[in-house]
Amino acid sequence: MDDFALSCPVPLPGDETIRTAHGGGGRATERLLDTIFRPAFDGPELARRHDGARLDLAGPVAMTTDSYVVRPLVFPGGDIGSLAVNGTVNDLAMCGARPAFLSAAFILEEGLETALLGRIVQSMAVAARAAGVRVVTGDLKVVERGKADGVFITTSGVGSIVATPAIEPQAVRPGDVVILSGDVGRHGIAVMAAREGLGFEPAIVSDCASVAAPVLALLDAGVDVHCLRDLTRGGLAGGLVEIAETAGLAMAIDEREVAVSVPVAAACEILGLDPFHVANEGRFVAFVGAGDAERAIAILRGHAVSEGAVAIGVVTSGPAGRVSARGLIGGTRILDMLSGEQLPRIC
Amino acid sequence: MDDFALSCPVPLPGDETIRTAHGGGGRATERLLDTIFRPAFDGPELARRHDGARLDLAGPVAMTTDSYVVRPLVFPGGDIGSLAVNGTVNDLAMCGARPAFLSAAFILEEGLETALLGRIVQSMAVAARAAGVRVVTGDLKVVERGKADGVFITTSGVGSIVATPAIEPQAVRPGDVVILSGDVGRHGIAVMAAREGLGFEPAIVSDCASVAAPVLALLDAGVDVHCLRDLTRGGLAGGLVEIAETAGLAMAIDEREVAVSVPVAAACEILGLDPFHVANEGRFVAFVGAGDAERAIAILRGHAVSEGAVAIGVVTSGPAGRVSARGLIGGTRILDMLSGEQLPRIC
Repeated sequence: MDDFALSCPVPLPGDETIRTAHGGGGRATERLLDTIFRPAFDGPELARRHDGARLDLAGPVAMTTDSYVVRPLVFPGGDIGSLAVNGTVNDLAMCGARPAFLSAAFILEEGLETALLGRIVQSMAVAARAAGVRVVTGDLKVVERGKADGVFITTSGVGSIVATPAIEPQAVRPGDVVILSGDVGRHGIAVMAAREGLGFEPAIVSDCASVAAPVLALLDAGVDVHCLRDLTRGGLAGGLVEIAETAGLAMAIDEREVAVSVPVAAACEILGLDPFHVANEGRFVAFVGAGDAERAIAILRGHAVSEGAVAIGVVTSGPAGRVSARGLIGGTRILDMLSGEQLPRIC
Repeated sequence: MDDFALSCPVPLPGDETIRTAHGGGGRATERLLDTIFRPAFDGPELARRHDGARLDLAGPVAMTTDSYVVRPLVFPGGDIGSLAVNGTVNDLAMCGARPAFLSAAFILEEGLETALLGRIVQSMAVAARAAGVRVVTGDLKVVERGKADGVFITTSGVGSIVATPAIEPQAVRPGDVVILSGDVGRHGIAVMAAREGLGFEPAIVSDCASVAAPVLALLDAGVDVHCLRDLTRGGLAGGLVEIAETAGLAMAIDEREVAVSVPVAAACEILGLDPFHVANEGRFVAFVGAGDAERAIAILRGHAVSEGAVAIGVVTSGPAGRVSARGLIGGTRILDMLSGEQLPRIC
């Protein structure tokens, strides 16, 4: 992250911390937009200074939204800005869409350091560029001290759907191979360690990244992809159970194929967490027709963000929502969705 | 608002107030979605239970977003839910688009009463139906007590642009007639009175409403509309100055044509506020070619939400950003954008 520091804008005198006036839609807001936001998200749509952006998009279109409330705002491997871009980009990719345009709405707490906001916005711009999307419209609100927690960001995204037929849970079929794009548990543990000041050595770095490129590569190659799901809140187990329930099918997973890095496994051991339930921000599962599974894995492995892609199991016909995982020493456990979240505010 | 009370869902035992677990993406989130959100926003897209919605939209497309942090959550004439729908619908209309689909992202504070959330969500559903849009995708996050303020809602919207050429500040021309759709200052004063417990008699009611219908009527009739702007934060003065600056033109306004209701005028007098700077949520200005102004006013007056439409001035060529207002007793003042906002957190 340190490379951003150099390119970050310097707030004007009097604007070093966020004040209520910065959210008023008047001169102070304009000054903040001109110093921090417009240089980062430069583009023809924002330059029109209108109530929204005019976009050239061919239908059908995918639309998605997420609010980001992660704490702390900056963590190893990312910050709330890169997370807000990658999370929404990945949701579009999971719909079989080519991520194209984002909106970004900021709720700022009075007293937030403007330089930190500048760094977060820069980080969004860098993530957007890397993912091939543009932030085309936005909003800025300020609430009083103690009425928010630094900054909350809500990003929405749109993109043209390139996949036919539709990629969705209902398209999953018995016999589909479940492909996991890489090791799990890094994002949740990285954020939690940063929040609680746990000094794991080496530091655990979030997997926060766009997965649009490998997903589009699968689709462009005509791979028989039935469903995609990024493994955010709820982790691998939550994602699999949700899809099994929606599809009305079961899954048999082999835990031995699921990679968990040694530091993440050790941290989970110490903290009493199950890495299958820990959030990721750059991992997904693909449900692919059996005949195309090998080709899909080869394509995914050609991209750094999914170079660890492996088949971890298959979809079976019964009973709906039952995901069984064969463990390291031969036994089988049933995966379930948690009631809440093991680690709150990780996204 | 009381008619909603009857149709509001009753939270399940244990779900009477929002807990951190409700934002975890697990069973507790699902239960809240099933009780509160899915019944209100019922539709084929949400039923797919995917990471985003698949929409049929013909390009070009307008996209807009706003976060809503209004306090109090409920005020005479609306609540944060109807505001979040109408505000985003109106921004789409201002782009010359037919509002079609919304996303809605909720940041909830732990301890929020679930029944109040249910009422707000119901209110969104009613407002969406009235405006002819559907909420097709969303998100839910929970933060700890004291880290938000009840509920913040971010809505984004998309719609097909029906206006050609583009409706935008840059299209304004000298000689254009400035048409105002109704009386000003009601929303800001209504919210402030509710917040501060000022018992104006009769109560001042927000103008919060969708203006999509009259705007689409103008466009469908082929009226020569150059620009549209809803008069939210910054009010009438802020909106006019911003457009004059962006267009590089001046405007001459006749204050005597701008309607301010007697209760709003009295409240502004007492509170030392200028109604020209007070926020509205159902008022807009239209910049229309002189030859079409009379026809535009007639069309607007055919819709209840804009039945008070009048011409309030003209666009002139001289100095960029200068908006002069001829006053009640003959003098002229120059309108400016405020530094901040007279009334914080009114939207």
